[in-house]
Amino acid sequence: MPSRRPPIAGRYTAEELALAARNRGMPLEALRDELTPAGLHYLLVHFDIPAVDEAAWRLQVTGLVKKPQAFDLNQLRRLPARTLRVTMECAGNGRGQLSPRYPSVPWLEEGVSTADWTGVRLSELLERARLREDVKEIVFHGADRGIDAGVEHRFARSLAPEQALRDEVLVAYAMNGAPLPPQHGAPLRLIVPRWYGMASVKWLRVIEAIDRPFDGLQQARSYHFRRSAADKGEPCTLMRVNSAMAPPGIPDFYTRKRVVEAGAIEIAGRAWSGHAPIASVELAVDGNWQQATLEHAHPAHAWRGWRATWQATAGEHELACRATDEAGHTQPLEPPWDLSGFGNNGVHRVKVTVRP
Amino acid sequence: MPSRRPPIAGRYTAEELALAARNRGMPLEALRDELTPAGLHYLLVHFDIPAVDEAAWRLQVTGLVKKPQAFDLNQLRRLPARTLRVTMECAGNGRGQLSPRYPSVPWLEEGVSTADWTGVRLSELLERARLREDVKEIVFHGADRGIDAGVEHRFARSLAPEQALRDEVLVAYAMNGAPLPPQHGAPLRLIVPRWYGMASVKWLRVIEAIDRPFDGLQQARSYHFRRSAADKGEPCTLMRVNSAMAPPGIPDFYTRKRVVEAGAIEIAGRAWSGHAPIASVELAVDGNWQQATLEHAHPAHAWRGWRATWQATAGEHELACRATDEAGHTQPLEPPWDLSGFGNNGVHRVKVTVRP
Repeated sequence: MPSRRPPIAGRYTAEELALAARNRGMPLEALRDELTPAGLHYLLVHFDIPAVDEAAWRLQVTGLVKKPQAFDLNQLRRLPARTLRVTMECAGNGRGQLSPRYPSVPWLEEGVSTADWTGVRLSELLERARLREDVKEIVFHGADRGIDAGVEHRFARSLAPEQALRDEVLVAYAMNGAPLPPQHGAPLRLIVPRWYGMASVKWLRVIEAIDRPFDGLQQARSYHFRRSAADKGEPCTLMRVNSAMAPPGIPDFYTRKRVVEAGAIEIAGRAWSGHAPIASVELAVDGNWQQATLEHAHPAHAWRGWRATWQATAGEHELACRATDEAGHTQPLEPPWDLSGFGNNGVHRVKVTVRP
Repeated sequence: MPSRRPPIAGRYTAEELALAARNRGMPLEALRDELTPAGLHYLLVHFDIPAVDEAAWRLQVTGLVKKPQAFDLNQLRRLPARTLRVTMECAGNGRGQLSPRYPSVPWLEEGVSTADWTGVRLSELLERARLREDVKEIVFHGADRGIDAGVEHRFARSLAPEQALRDEVLVAYAMNGAPLPPQHGAPLRLIVPRWYGMASVKWLRVIEAIDRPFDGLQQARSYHFRRSAADKGEPCTLMRVNSAMAPPGIPDFYTRKRVVEAGAIEIAGRAWSGHAPIASVELAVDGNWQQATLEHAHPAHAWRGWRATWQATAGEHELACRATDEAGHTQPLEPPWDLSGFGNNGVHRVKVTVRP
């Protein structure tokens, strides 16, 4: 376990605020679009956005491989390209709703988005490099460097070979049809659909095959579900079932509380799970649950749209939505506790004033 | 005066945090680029980002004009185009450093960016509409609607005709060479160079000429410098002289404190003023000021780059930068107090640990 920062109760610290100002979430009105515009995609940058020389960039495939490789961007762009629409969520989404909470990015519920990522299948690169038989993990090294929990390092994560070789894992060079923006990993990033965002390493420079479990801080110590500081924990992997709604009506600037006119109001949102397709979504008005209607078509790795009609009557109301996936997972009514604030998939609640 | 929210001391509220998570600032490492990538430009959206039908969008020029106009996007794109590189800063930049502070977006120092805006001169549209002689102000109405200080309204601001007719005021349809992104006002926004960002109305729908001072909330009540709640105040207009540096070295993830190695370190940043060109920038190490070197060339309405060399010695140090403009304005050493947290141009300070 790293040296841990003391937990925070009550209002937010200057450090949390600075992280929130740097790392923008997706404004929830953007849930109206299946595809999040690039400039609205949520963003978590652990250290600084690296300064990059694209012409000199080489992606190395190295370590326990029979034929080490080094690709420049033009070589990668000439390989067969694949585009996938992928919903990505930060493992810490919802952290800011917990108390006491771990000192880190205090997401409320906006740490989720969907983009079209274009790139090369990782499996294609690994097949060219020919993994040795004793390979246990593939490590993905980013260019971003800094200090966390007292440890200086470049951000790096690993996958088991059976995960890395899955057909949908990409080394991406484009987002929503344009070159990767600097903050999303330009010129290259990993995309691991259905996993929390930490797996999709940005500013990807080196892919390294090793014969042991990777012990880097972001793999072996951070990004674990833990009940206590003594708990070894379980690694964060696939996204838990979750959902959110586009808040109806108009907001108050400061409180973001919503105001609508009485009458029939269509509530729309999106639901996702890394474990299985979405099976159902429910909308509650003041605790009374009703089934929402799911959109029929949606890409395999993207969220699924849903909508429901609310007969709004004058007064103060609370809306809530919860999703269930085909593996039988349902969002909990209360945020699930985790020491580091990971995996909070408690139902999304929105307070609304209905004017007569 | 609107009903005011009570001031906040100490740590940040959930409302402030939610506004910071929605309204992303520019990560200060982006100061290395004169032109801020579109997805990193700071963003303040008062209400929701409106859903827009570009094909149906009409910009009306109406009110006290002899020939009312309505332009669709294709008509505007066929008019003579002009591109300007413009530094824009939120009037509330630095609010989060004040105490007690006004409950609003708690910017630290990241509410500033520079973009290339392309569009039509506003003067061209006003000349086609032919302003009547009794026009006192031109009002710019956006599509974004919500509630602030108890008042429901669409965001709207005004300019005096002599300001509106200035050659550099644009109705822009492109940012950094691409169509405006939704969050920056698609399909049309006003660009008022040298003014704080509130003047550059997004989602521009109606330009209205009137014969009196505009009394909208965002013009007559918000965006005023005030010493007390009883103070009528002075309107926020041109950006005060200000500067910031790209933090050197590498960050700690949570505290964002910087670490560098001892030796010669180049510190670089940018400085801007709406009142006059930048005349000089100074860098202080532990309170000892030295002149920085200014970049020679810079566009008329954009920030000016500067750099200085720091001979860093092991230990804890504080860097600070301050700019002076040709009108003789210099940044204050301490944040200037304002009731609503506007116009804080106190010097930018960065704490650095130097390793031997």
